Amino acid sequence: MTSQAPTPAYRRLSVEERRSQLLEAALSLFAHRAPEDVSLDDVAEAAGVSRPLVYRYFPGGKQQLYEAALRSAADELRHCFDEPHEGPLLPRLSRALDRYLAFVDQHDTGFSALLQGGSVVETSRTTAIVDGVRRAAAEHVLTHLGVAEPGRRLRMTIRMWITAVEAASLIWLDEDKQPPLDELRDWLVEQFVAVLAVTARRDAQADALVRELAADL
Amino acid sequence: MTSQAPTPAYRRLSVEERRSQLLEAALSLFAHRAPEDVSLDDVAEAAGVSRPLVYRYFPGGKQQLYEAALRSAADELRHCFDEPHEGPLLPRLSRALDRYLAFVDQHDTGFSALLQGGSVVETSRTTAIVDGVRRAAAEHVLTHLGVAEPGRRLRMTIRMWITAVEAASLIWLDEDKQPPLDELRDWLVEQFVAVLAVTARRDAQADALVRELAADL
Repeated sequence: MTSQAPTPAYRRLSVEERRSQLLEAALSLFAHRAPEDVSLDDVAEAAGVSRPLVYRYFPGGKQQLYEAALRSAADELRHCFDEPHEGPLLPRLSRALDRYLAFVDQHDTGFSALLQGGSVVETSRTTAIVDGVRRAAAEHVLTHLGVAEPGRRLRMTIRMWITAVEAASLIWLDEDKQPPLDELRDWLVEQFVAVLAVTARRDAQADALVRELAADL
Repeated sequence: MTSQAPTPAYRRLSVEERRSQLLEAALSLFAHRAPEDVSLDDVAEAAGVSRPLVYRYFPGGKQQLYEAALRSAADELRHCFDEPHEGPLLPRLSRALDRYLAFVDQHDTGFSALLQGGSVVETSRTTAIVDGVRRAAAEHVLTHLGVAEPGRRLRMTIRMWITAVEAASLIWLDEDKQPPLDELRDWLVEQFVAVLAVTARRDAQADALVRELAADL
């Protein structure tokens, strides 16, 4: 037995490290399975610890673990939107979309289960976390557009486009990840420009932005 | 007491009529309040019957009543999409959108509560009902476009636009029903044309449709 490395259960981890390790195990399970197909035993096994240990850290059981994993995924997703405020606008949007779509690709099953709704683990808290990410995405787009006080039509246009991006992600997962990610990304960027141009017909703020984007090209 | 008309509770209704009456009372309550703010007592009171009578028709209580009301609302919503296959395409789309947006206007609170998710009454069954309406909407658009075998990009474009319409409805309710419905409707129709034109850059089917729409104008 001396040749065996100690199993992960016996590594000495700080409370914070142990918590992170459990969360990471949970997140990777919830990313690739529907929440109802993940048990606490699965999480314990994936983390190489006992079920009681999981309960010690997450006394609320699977629901608490799911929400914590979702919060951690939401943070990761927010980081996808981080993009320097430099250079032409559309390439910035492309780069942020590339990171977002890579996240969707990496968390496929969990992403679908979460956003398709009706899941057993869905609560007003999980909905609030998802809405927080949507709001963050809209805020990011607006700051990149350099609009300090966006009017109703501009805000609505951006929120609609973000919803369309979300829908595209779900359909893309549903369609065996077709078309290829770079085509999907370009398509979404072009849709952004197109819907902004429609809004520009009735909104001065959007009109100014469309001119700015055209000047970039 | 002889001058009083009999209360609704004592009207003789057939089983079917009684069921419809209870459903109608439930639907009008669920349309204007969040599901958690509607009790069986409220439904009984609105229908002018006793609580045990409501339970006799809906032994599953509020959840069963909510799902039955949702099914009935979904049928009503499907009827909004009925539109003769005659005349230019965009006015047909406008008329269907007018009816859809009137439905949203009339069922405001319930519509928001249902689609914002995380509600206590949300189950995989309610999600399936809502998805059924979305699929019906996409099918209607495709049959009006006269496309028998829509390719992936065209289907995706239409599903994304339908999601954007849904998002617009929710934002519109959230923004005290601004802009006015006719502006919102025109805006959504123009977005449809714009996103179809973006897809046309990489898809022959969409390209043919865009030419057809342009010929209509």
